[in-house]
Amino acid sequence: MKRTMHTASTWTFNTLALQLSGSFGPVTLAYETWGMLSRTGDNAVLLTHALTGNAHAYDGTRPDDPRAAWWNPLIGPGRPFDTERYFVICSNVLGGCYGSTGPASLDPTTGHPYGLRFPLVTIHDMVNAQRKLVEHLGVRQLAVVAGGSLGGQQALEWAVSYPELVEMVVVVAATAALTAQAVAFSEVQRQAIMADPRWLGGAYVPGHGPDAGLAIARMLAMITYQSEEAMELRFARRLAQRHNTLAPSGYAAFGGLFDVESYLYHQGEALVRRFDANSYLYLSRAMDLYDVGEGYPSLEDALRRIRSKALFIGIRSDVLFPAARVRQLAEGVRQVGGNAMYQELNSPHGHDAFLKEWEQMTVAFDLIRDQ
Amino acid sequence: MKRTMHTASTWTFNTLALQLSGSFGPVTLAYETWGMLSRTGDNAVLLTHALTGNAHAYDGTRPDDPRAAWWNPLIGPGRPFDTERYFVICSNVLGGCYGSTGPASLDPTTGHPYGLRFPLVTIHDMVNAQRKLVEHLGVRQLAVVAGGSLGGQQALEWAVSYPELVEMVVVVAATAALTAQAVAFSEVQRQAIMADPRWLGGAYVPGHGPDAGLAIARMLAMITYQSEEAMELRFARRLAQRHNTLAPSGYAAFGGLFDVESYLYHQGEALVRRFDANSYLYLSRAMDLYDVGEGYPSLEDALRRIRSKALFIGIRSDVLFPAARVRQLAEGVRQVGGNAMYQELNSPHGHDAFLKEWEQMTVAFDLIRDQ
Repeated sequence: MKRTMHTASTWTFNTLALQLSGSFGPVTLAYETWGMLSRTGDNAVLLTHALTGNAHAYDGTRPDDPRAAWWNPLIGPGRPFDTERYFVICSNVLGGCYGSTGPASLDPTTGHPYGLRFPLVTIHDMVNAQRKLVEHLGVRQLAVVAGGSLGGQQALEWAVSYPELVEMVVVVAATAALTAQAVAFSEVQRQAIMADPRWLGGAYVPGHGPDAGLAIARMLAMITYQSEEAMELRFARRLAQRHNTLAPSGYAAFGGLFDVESYLYHQGEALVRRFDANSYLYLSRAMDLYDVGEGYPSLEDALRRIRSKALFIGIRSDVLFPAARVRQLAEGVRQVGGNAMYQELNSPHGHDAFLKEWEQMTVAFDLIRDQ
Repeated sequence: MKRTMHTASTWTFNTLALQLSGSFGPVTLAYETWGMLSRTGDNAVLLTHALTGNAHAYDGTRPDDPRAAWWNPLIGPGRPFDTERYFVICSNVLGGCYGSTGPASLDPTTGHPYGLRFPLVTIHDMVNAQRKLVEHLGVRQLAVVAGGSLGGQQALEWAVSYPELVEMVVVVAATAALTAQAVAFSEVQRQAIMADPRWLGGAYVPGHGPDAGLAIARMLAMITYQSEEAMELRFARRLAQRHNTLAPSGYAAFGGLFDVESYLYHQGEALVRRFDANSYLYLSRAMDLYDVGEGYPSLEDALRRIRSKALFIGIRSDVLFPAARVRQLAEGVRQVGGNAMYQELNSPHGHDAFLKEWEQMTVAFDLIRDQ
């Protein structure tokens, strides 16, 4: 009898040693799996999600709708992450707000949401929590760890921290560390959230938080996820068809409304409905603070630890994680003797291309698997 | 007897016909002049300032301090805008907050600041107000109109609207119209201002306005005025030497403070001390709305009106006004028979290079004058 192909569940463990601030617990991780784990426990694929993502990487009930799950077109029978071959796992990150323990969770010692009493979590902590989860699931070897953006940072950290567990790693649109410009964009977003009086120093009741600040943060983030080229192709100077009142401040642009403005208002509002502002602060800060070389004598020493076959995918038009820096990272791995390959998505879609360019990504995955 | 070399004054006229909303008045313009107007009234240079600029383009008491006035190194004896040869004029724009009538001015009919009752002003309106001023000063011909960014848009508009009055035009870091991405960045800034509860729908008491929102807007603007390259050179991932509490929200970044963050806090605070939030909204919107072809059958028809010798200066690393689009504009003028030259500043400093690359700009100005 076949085991069920899909599970969506949570798992709780007591304590996690954190990189920066002692130990923390209990920790719950929300996760989903697709496919079956082999008897030898070595056919697992771990997919790691981006800033506002969740465990729902694949939707087997709507496999052909790219919007039904965040990497839907890459997962399933006959696709790169073949659920008939692999046991595919995706968990909501530590610090997230889709079922895993994060700042909106109740602190069992007080009965109130953690808010800013939640500890500063790092990419390394997220990976350590995932490690406990995959061990709990019986996994002995990860055939692949793959993700983009914050997920790419996690994948890279997996390969460096636990080289013996990762057979192949796919790092999409992520670099050794963020640029000053990317950190700067990130901090403007956090200031917009923290300046919202409804933020209350982080002590808002989840669901009644700094909606305007979070929406403004999202508007800015959406610009940085795209590119001048992509926005020009899509919006140029076209005016919005009708004036809407979804502007974060409650005041829409005056002197007419550009379509790009209306689009950004909608994007802001959509995130507010689904995401927690404190989670946004913690996770975006984890991205800023990540530096793969940290804790090692040098970047080279960190990269030398990698034992996996490694695929690095950059995006030509990426503002946040410039392609040149992704390529540099791949070269860095090769220079210390690693087996790294670099592929570039020729896309105008900027950082977001890792959630859009399905064909190019499929081709890249096929290349590394057949290598 | 020699006339005084420097005047700083204001001039008020009764009414200005606006492009979008009837007539408006009275209008006061604050302005400064350097040098002497010739008897024939044809040696005048008009310099047009950028978003948060003012009439103080030159400081004759500190001519060698680039920070003493916004185009200080380009003005004065022996410099491109030679005050012994030219009568140099600079006025604060209509809608500004450095002495010219703007949203923070008192509405004489109510005795209260205009706030959002101030009319929507355009680049064309700013130019028309300047035209009245230069006529009042006895100018019959402008030997040069020059400016960068919002000032470049004004210079371009001068050449198109009043071709018979402008002998030479210098348009630095400005294009025919903003890109969708630039409009988007601009609207995020305005939303940050308008979401600040102290904005009060624009009805705050000037000086007691939305400081946090304006500081956040400035933080974002400063990123777009620079470039990834420039910020990496200057900040990289260096940490701030000491924690400061100038963050707009009152909450500095957690998990350490990057130098780039501390720098942006300071920039935000510095603008709050010197600029009015409503002026920021109006002037940035005027930039967004500007399209040199508007009101003409086509862009070509607009550009065909130019009779001046024209110099367009783009900046290699400019995010807001991409060099390729500045070049396109110059080519557009040439294609309809105009005398246009394009020069590119090879600078990593992004949009801000028009306030930094003094040598390259001096060389470019010399080139066109000698042409």
